[in-house]
Amino acid sequence: MPDKLHTKYVLDEREMPRAWYNIIPDLPHPLAPVLHPGTRQPVGPDDLAPLFPMGLILQEVSTERYIEIPEPVRQIYTQWRPSPLYRARQLEQALDTPARIYYKYEGVSPVGSHKPNTAVAQAYYNQQAGVKKISTETGAGQWGSSMAMAGAFFGIEVEVFMVKISYQQKPFRRSMMQAYGATVHASPTNLTQAGRSILAQDPDGLGSLGTAISEAVEVAASSGGTIKYALGSVLNHVLLHQTIVGEETLLQMAQADDYPDVVIGCAGGGSNMAGLAFPFIRERLNRGLNTRFLAAEPTACPSLTKGVYAYDFGDTVGMTPLMKMHTLGHDFVPAGIHAGGLRYHGMAPLMSLLHEDGILEAQAYAQNNIFAAAVEFARAEGIIPAPESAHAICAAINEALEAKEAGEERVILFNLSGHGHFDMAAYDAYFEGKLQDFEYPAEAIADATTRLPQVDETALVPGD
Amino acid sequence: MPDKLHTKYVLDEREMPRAWYNIIPDLPHPLAPVLHPGTRQPVGPDDLAPLFPMGLILQEVSTERYIEIPEPVRQIYTQWRPSPLYRARQLEQALDTPARIYYKYEGVSPVGSHKPNTAVAQAYYNQQAGVKKISTETGAGQWGSSMAMAGAFFGIEVEVFMVKISYQQKPFRRSMMQAYGATVHASPTNLTQAGRSILAQDPDGLGSLGTAISEAVEVAASSGGTIKYALGSVLNHVLLHQTIVGEETLLQMAQADDYPDVVIGCAGGGSNMAGLAFPFIRERLNRGLNTRFLAAEPTACPSLTKGVYAYDFGDTVGMTPLMKMHTLGHDFVPAGIHAGGLRYHGMAPLMSLLHEDGILEAQAYAQNNIFAAAVEFARAEGIIPAPESAHAICAAINEALEAKEAGEERVILFNLSGHGHFDMAAYDAYFEGKLQDFEYPAEAIADATTRLPQVDETALVPGD
Repeated sequence: MPDKLHTKYVLDEREMPRAWYNIIPDLPHPLAPVLHPGTRQPVGPDDLAPLFPMGLILQEVSTERYIEIPEPVRQIYTQWRPSPLYRARQLEQALDTPARIYYKYEGVSPVGSHKPNTAVAQAYYNQQAGVKKISTETGAGQWGSSMAMAGAFFGIEVEVFMVKISYQQKPFRRSMMQAYGATVHASPTNLTQAGRSILAQDPDGLGSLGTAISEAVEVAASSGGTIKYALGSVLNHVLLHQTIVGEETLLQMAQADDYPDVVIGCAGGGSNMAGLAFPFIRERLNRGLNTRFLAAEPTACPSLTKGVYAYDFGDTVGMTPLMKMHTLGHDFVPAGIHAGGLRYHGMAPLMSLLHEDGILEAQAYAQNNIFAAAVEFARAEGIIPAPESAHAICAAINEALEAKEAGEERVILFNLSGHGHFDMAAYDAYFEGKLQDFEYPAEAIADATTRLPQVDETALVPGD
Repeated sequence: MPDKLHTKYVLDEREMPRAWYNIIPDLPHPLAPVLHPGTRQPVGPDDLAPLFPMGLILQEVSTERYIEIPEPVRQIYTQWRPSPLYRARQLEQALDTPARIYYKYEGVSPVGSHKPNTAVAQAYYNQQAGVKKISTETGAGQWGSSMAMAGAFFGIEVEVFMVKISYQQKPFRRSMMQAYGATVHASPTNLTQAGRSILAQDPDGLGSLGTAISEAVEVAASSGGTIKYALGSVLNHVLLHQTIVGEETLLQMAQADDYPDVVIGCAGGGSNMAGLAFPFIRERLNRGLNTRFLAAEPTACPSLTKGVYAYDFGDTVGMTPLMKMHTLGHDFVPAGIHAGGLRYHGMAPLMSLLHEDGILEAQAYAQNNIFAAAVEFARAEGIIPAPESAHAICAAINEALEAKEAGEERVILFNLSGHGHFDMAAYDAYFEGKLQDFEYPAEAIADATTRLPQVDETALVPGD
């Protein structure tokens, strides 16, 4: 039984874990190879070299279980890490539940979310490779502001393609990137072929994460090697960097003398959920535990619950390598929900595989439900969550109420990936009853499937 | 010499100090009595009872050196306290200074500033007195959102009069208060006599903190005892509650094996500066140290550097008791600088007295300078500061550069009272070159002095 009065479990920076955890060697089944978009055959490290520095490429394909966090990255992590683990005592009381609810809070980072965990690492490996400029995209702006900050720390210029609807709705995230010294464009732009082709089809289009990725990739790919590209989720190395979250949480749960029955995260590209969950999945596999893992996604963009598991592009135009993942189709443009960070057509290959293997459950939530959960949480715990993180809260509250109904002491752990201080317009819309709930139409998935890239999986070299 | 690599000094919640520090018994000279606005004679506790619960009134006049923090307040404090103390290693490097710079960061609270330290305490004592509703005012919204959150925690309804210009410029702080369940009005309103009389003089007026205070005080005073009033700065009990900041910092500086030569805070009403400084002033007085204390205020509202030390009202209309303090005159409406939390005509009586006694230095800074300092800080340390806190940063950077010039190892400590995530429009204006620098006109102070309330101080009972 945990200490009755403890609310916040902190670690000194000297207790911060020294390695990221790579789940690849522990997977029950091997990850499907990444394919070249032209040849549709497995890519090697050199194929990725135009986009990423070799340090990150080697992490992308590494089979080492632990990868040491470089000292300069650790030093910057200490700016906000180790982040606190909270016991949600006031929420438990409000719900009158026998469940014990814990949340890891990543909103203490300077930009207010978990994204700097990988942005700082990516900036470091780029700097080591002598890179002077990085291009990237951003949806809601969490990732773009993290990359902008990391660029400022390592003296790297950052150019951000920000989805136009977010650029208009969230001007303050744009301001934040500029405060860190980054250049920000509303995507689609006229600056790239990809942008121009999308604008030709729809001059008033509000953009999508897939399109912004196409633009940022094009800038790097056509730079002759002077500009590299950075992605804020989906890829193995990004999920790897986030595992610092779960490694810390394991130590903090031990401080609390408790252990989760269910681990929850919101899932867009998959990195914040993976960051918390992967070290706990390792413990489940190694120690034969029954821990459940639950990904919370929006009904408007339900890649895990409604998507197909197939090879697809990471971007809209089809410039990126093909990854086997849960996808709603690379040309799917999700409805304009306020959880902009979850509006992505695909799901990280690692998360997708774990879902296929039955380790990772998934559940989709409608927008008004997640805001109701967010407000209940804010009034009990104080922290106003980002709409993305509110999906995890909604799932956690459901679990706590189920536990109450069943009269059981369920231990619930979730990742509160960020605060909602840049999302107050969404709260206004919720209180004014103006939020629409979007359901992903059943026929859309069948339609999108017809445009998936064709891959003959039997022709792939086995074991690659 | 401090540990070379330590960046962040954390305390476990069980190490959190158990008492607030009351500086009154340690003052070199007694504090001038608070006067009744009608009789202009010293008020007793009963005179304040229409506005405040007795628990807070007794703290206002207490001469006990330490006042124990009640357990329910401590429990809520642990949501974000103890807050971290940072060594600003990256800023030191950017400035190439031999100075060691430390900052206490209060932006980790759920609303992003130091204000909940007193809001939670005030809500608690009101709840203990059976109060069901609190009226208050807010400028930039930091205080209003803190009181709204504290009200949600203790089941107390909160009504906020928000200065109209802030209501319009900072809609998201309004949203935040509403998310916590508070009612928010743009002041001046038609709901109070005070508001109506101000509107009659100037129907398009954008309001001021003084006017909003008049409205909130009137709501409480005319409620027949059912509604109490709460203030976010200036008063002794408010400064008292903030001393948890300095008490923690003393422990953390000891962890760092270091001690400040100069302690800095921004000063509007004076509470965040007092919170950090008072425990260090105690140490200076008790241990005969030479520690300097520097209040950083805006040139647009320079109550310490340009104001007179005299009796004045706390509000515009003249409803509050008279306090002896540095003041620019109760009808002074400061220019619309973005540091809304520093736009107050007066300064806490305790801070004012310490300035008179030569313990507290003061320096005024222009708006463009403080934003330049804020941007330099953000690019080095990551945290984007509130414009209020940027005054302290500006002062700290000046001290660090002086130390560099003098070639001395000055140890600088400042209070980073909050983050600037709700202030990005101000950063935009700065980058666009649209920020105006305001100087308080020399003739204004002479003019304002003519309207100060007349008090015959020789007629006051000595020693009161």
